[in-house]
Amino acid sequence: MSLINQQIHLIKRPAGEVKPSDFKLVEAPVPALKKGEVLLKTEYFSLDPYMRNRMNDLKSYAEAFKLNEVLTGHSICRVEESNSPDLKAGDMVLASTGWQKYAVIKPTLSETMGFDERTVTKLDPAVKPSLYLGTLGMPGFTAYHGLLEIGQPQAGETVVVAAATGPVGSMVGQLAKAKGCHVVGIAGGPEKCRYAIEHFGFDACIDHTSKTMAKDLKQACPKGIDIYYENVGGTIFKAVLPLLNAFARVPVCGAIQWYNDAATLAEKSFSFDQILPRIAAFFRTFFHLDQTPLIWFNLIGKRLKLQGFIISDHYKGYGKFLKETIPLVHSGKIKVKEDIVKGIENAPQAIAGLLRGKNFGKLVIEV
Amino acid sequence: MSLINQQIHLIKRPAGEVKPSDFKLVEAPVPALKKGEVLLKTEYFSLDPYMRNRMNDLKSYAEAFKLNEVLTGHSICRVEESNSPDLKAGDMVLASTGWQKYAVIKPTLSETMGFDERTVTKLDPAVKPSLYLGTLGMPGFTAYHGLLEIGQPQAGETVVVAAATGPVGSMVGQLAKAKGCHVVGIAGGPEKCRYAIEHFGFDACIDHTSKTMAKDLKQACPKGIDIYYENVGGTIFKAVLPLLNAFARVPVCGAIQWYNDAATLAEKSFSFDQILPRIAAFFRTFFHLDQTPLIWFNLIGKRLKLQGFIISDHYKGYGKFLKETIPLVHSGKIKVKEDIVKGIENAPQAIAGLLRGKNFGKLVIEV
Repeated sequence: MSLINQQIHLIKRPAGEVKPSDFKLVEAPVPALKKGEVLLKTEYFSLDPYMRNRMNDLKSYAEAFKLNEVLTGHSICRVEESNSPDLKAGDMVLASTGWQKYAVIKPTLSETMGFDERTVTKLDPAVKPSLYLGTLGMPGFTAYHGLLEIGQPQAGETVVVAAATGPVGSMVGQLAKAKGCHVVGIAGGPEKCRYAIEHFGFDACIDHTSKTMAKDLKQACPKGIDIYYENVGGTIFKAVLPLLNAFARVPVCGAIQWYNDAATLAEKSFSFDQILPRIAAFFRTFFHLDQTPLIWFNLIGKRLKLQGFIISDHYKGYGKFLKETIPLVHSGKIKVKEDIVKGIENAPQAIAGLLRGKNFGKLVIEV
Repeated sequence: MSLINQQIHLIKRPAGEVKPSDFKLVEAPVPALKKGEVLLKTEYFSLDPYMRNRMNDLKSYAEAFKLNEVLTGHSICRVEESNSPDLKAGDMVLASTGWQKYAVIKPTLSETMGFDERTVTKLDPAVKPSLYLGTLGMPGFTAYHGLLEIGQPQAGETVVVAAATGPVGSMVGQLAKAKGCHVVGIAGGPEKCRYAIEHFGFDACIDHTSKTMAKDLKQACPKGIDIYYENVGGTIFKAVLPLLNAFARVPVCGAIQWYNDAATLAEKSFSFDQILPRIAAFFRTFFHLDQTPLIWFNLIGKRLKLQGFIISDHYKGYGKFLKETIPLVHSGKIKVKEDIVKGIENAPQAIAGLLRGKNFGKLVIEV
């Protein structure tokens, strides 16, 4: 039997917004198994905002996707055939095989997640598999590490996080609530905001599509902001900055509002300075187009800590995270919200929507 | 006998660069001593870059100077008369009496520094008194805390600091050398650069007045930058950012290049956005006038830590700092450079020069 694989390739680096035409569905036969290898059949794969950055051709925290190859990323797979002593047919694993129906790999079994082709983690059969891509996967662990290790939340403090109904934001909010914090979410539209409060238990949630966003945020944070979990950048950070309290912490794990700009930034950054430095300086200073001085004064005056992190540096703690978090999910103390799109062919449309904030909950493709 | 005091008052909040005409020398009789009070005669007072910020009418990390009152700041005083059981005539103290010849205070003796009117620290008679304003005072302690606590230097790492011949920069460089780091200074002009290398033992020093500054800095840091001790902001940070290594630390204690802008920033920040938001956004994005997105991508991609601090939060550690540092100064392992200007009437001119980088070494006024 010759199995036919289906893969989504990136065929063009998107300029600005991602379009479905930047991708292509490609078919090819699945290679025969060699010694030590396993055949994995993808049940779900993950679509995440950080992938937008990997579509740019730049040295970034995650390696750039290669053109005309399958897009990589976390997946939930069933072992179909195994030549490996570590896995048997029927086993369910978390892998990094990406946007394709089948994959043949020589697996390395691990308690932690990997970003490489080989590392696989066996799933707890009592857990709904797709959760390993969201609340119990890389996004949930990102929330956990950034909030608890860098943010160090204390009872009574105010925590703000954007993309509040997404897998990172919803987990940040729920973990912060569990620490006794006042938790304010930011989300796109009244429906998501209501959901953040009613389903995830946020104390308040601000609609960033509203013209009164900055004012609303201020009202929702009467004691200022002690932790701003940064995953969006852009206009939301601007509204947050004046509200930050002395000794506030800002774990920085993403900047989705700026991902579309990243390609041009890398190439052209400061180009105006190079051509007409005096005019650039005039615009920057006179019209205050550069926020950097204001950020610096806040950094000093308020003794802020801004710290970037990449979750893959911390995967060794993933096992501990699962041990703590699986019981909370099962007891209903941590709630989830998934947005499952069926059909590999719908992945390009789905990621384009994700990057425009159109999805609702953790976006996964069911293959 | 009725003593006549001389004080420098701030009579106008400077717009942009500080001018001597923003100050005025005022004479007034010294009040009689009450119970518990002492009469202090100023021998030296300190002029520091952070004072520029205090001349602006804004909520800053240090309180704004009041108009038509004496400028405050650290001073070295001799006790002339004492009604306090803690001090006797002839004692030398570090105080916060500022830009004046005499002061009458009700003292609180402390092992630490204060920024308030009352706290005084007795000086070690074996130490040259003026050093308590520089290498052994607030500036040296600022270097020590920011470098060691936030920077956490490891042997073999590269440390960069600007204002390399000033009391903060020279101390950062020498402490980093003692930790086994490769230390690169930045200073204004070839004379200061040579001095940073020959006198303070920097491995290299880059002249920021040179057009090739960014290129020179890159050459002097062949293994990138692990700690950038930030005290200037502006164009130097721009040159540093692309050279920062993964997991680099940036203690932020000052932004002298931007202090002149601070007043307008506070009032007008984002004004262009408020009037013509679409045009502002166009300029910001198209010409990349806003460095924030680039800083964010570096924060994440390189897992940077940017942390602001204000040294007065940490004064309780000043006694420990003195115990460690006085022997190093006396043995010549830590070198000093003072710029002593005689005459209280010359303070306005001297601080204007300091803020234009015209002085050389720790600037103090000898009264």
